[in-house]
Amino acid sequence: MLKLYYAANTCALASHIALEEAGADYQAVRIDFRADEQRKPAYLAINPKGRVPALATDKGILTETPAILAYVAQTFPKARLAPLDDAFAFARVQAFNSYLCSTVHVAHAHRVRGYRWADDPAAIKEMQRKVPQSVGECFSLIEREMLAGPWVMGEAYTVCDPYLFTISQWLDGDGVDIARFPEVQDHSRRMNARPAVKKALAAELA
Amino acid sequence: MLKLYYAANTCALASHIALEEAGADYQAVRIDFRADEQRKPAYLAINPKGRVPALATDKGILTETPAILAYVAQTFPKARLAPLDDAFAFARVQAFNSYLCSTVHVAHAHRVRGYRWADDPAAIKEMQRKVPQSVGECFSLIEREMLAGPWVMGEAYTVCDPYLFTISQWLDGDGVDIARFPEVQDHSRRMNARPAVKKALAAELA
Repeated sequence: MLKLYYAANTCALASHIALEEAGADYQAVRIDFRADEQRKPAYLAINPKGRVPALATDKGILTETPAILAYVAQTFPKARLAPLDDAFAFARVQAFNSYLCSTVHVAHAHRVRGYRWADDPAAIKEMQRKVPQSVGECFSLIEREMLAGPWVMGEAYTVCDPYLFTISQWLDGDGVDIARFPEVQDHSRRMNARPAVKKALAAELA
Repeated sequence: MLKLYYAANTCALASHIALEEAGADYQAVRIDFRADEQRKPAYLAINPKGRVPALATDKGILTETPAILAYVAQTFPKARLAPLDDAFAFARVQAFNSYLCSTVHVAHAHRVRGYRWADDPAAIKEMQRKVPQSVGECFSLIEREMLAGPWVMGEAYTVCDPYLFTISQWLDGDGVDIARFPEVQDHSRRMNARPAVKKALAAELA
């Protein structure tokens, strides 16, 4: 059985939702970030990066949200979570998810994990100050250029959708008013109505 | 014909090498970062993010290195640049490339593109100060946990290899001695000996 290692309020929610959408038989295992469980030997043996998500499969461990999302789409083809028979369309899914992980998530991370890139408290504070601007610019681009609607890729729901939904949840904390992005806001509403999203959220918040 | 938009000394080199390895019929189009060409309307019409690489295909434009690399592997299957018939092995390729783009490249970018995450010059300087440590930690993990050898995924050369090679080129500028990572150093030597790498490097440095 698949085992998803996650922590509440992290990007692991995207993989959690995708597993629900896929109808996968899986177990969700909570890692307690407040107790720094992700840096303890037991978890580092699972994921030496000390981060979530990690997905344990019968072949071994997978990490990194875009890789896990594509894996879920490929191994549950009946759920139709990605255009698996069209390399260009599949690459567009991957490009969107890659943008979220390498640019949008990173912009957000400067609010809560600035210690990764600076030690001086004044510099960390200055990074935090810029987060509303940098995250806001990312979402302007998503709103204007990327979110086709009603789902990210258009009529077809894909693994881009749980990932965008997950990062959209952080806007309020990042000091960005989601109402500036009506398409993103509508997308979040549509996502919140999906049974898979309700189930994953309920499990993480329980 | 495929058209790769690149700039010298950027992560676009990975896609450039992959196209060479694939034996693709493509044209490489240089974007002049010194003239800020990536932020001008002509290029923004190609890639609204104002970054490289971008790959123009007959179906449209693709961006983001991990997406382009997987696309090249999938559309040139005879080149065997990824394990296309094994979803788990393919996901491991993706996970490695995702780590490079979202963590390693990002750590490096704090040396040269700190303005993305802070405005205050003192904070930008403090970010630069930490780059040897943060990039060094990434490469310690790659050396210890990820680089199977002789290629990233083991015996089979994949699209992970040009990407790792590309980022390894930045170590010296980042203040990290590659000799600390013998496996990475050997990998770079093996890459430098490949005709595809020589050809892509020569084109970019011409």
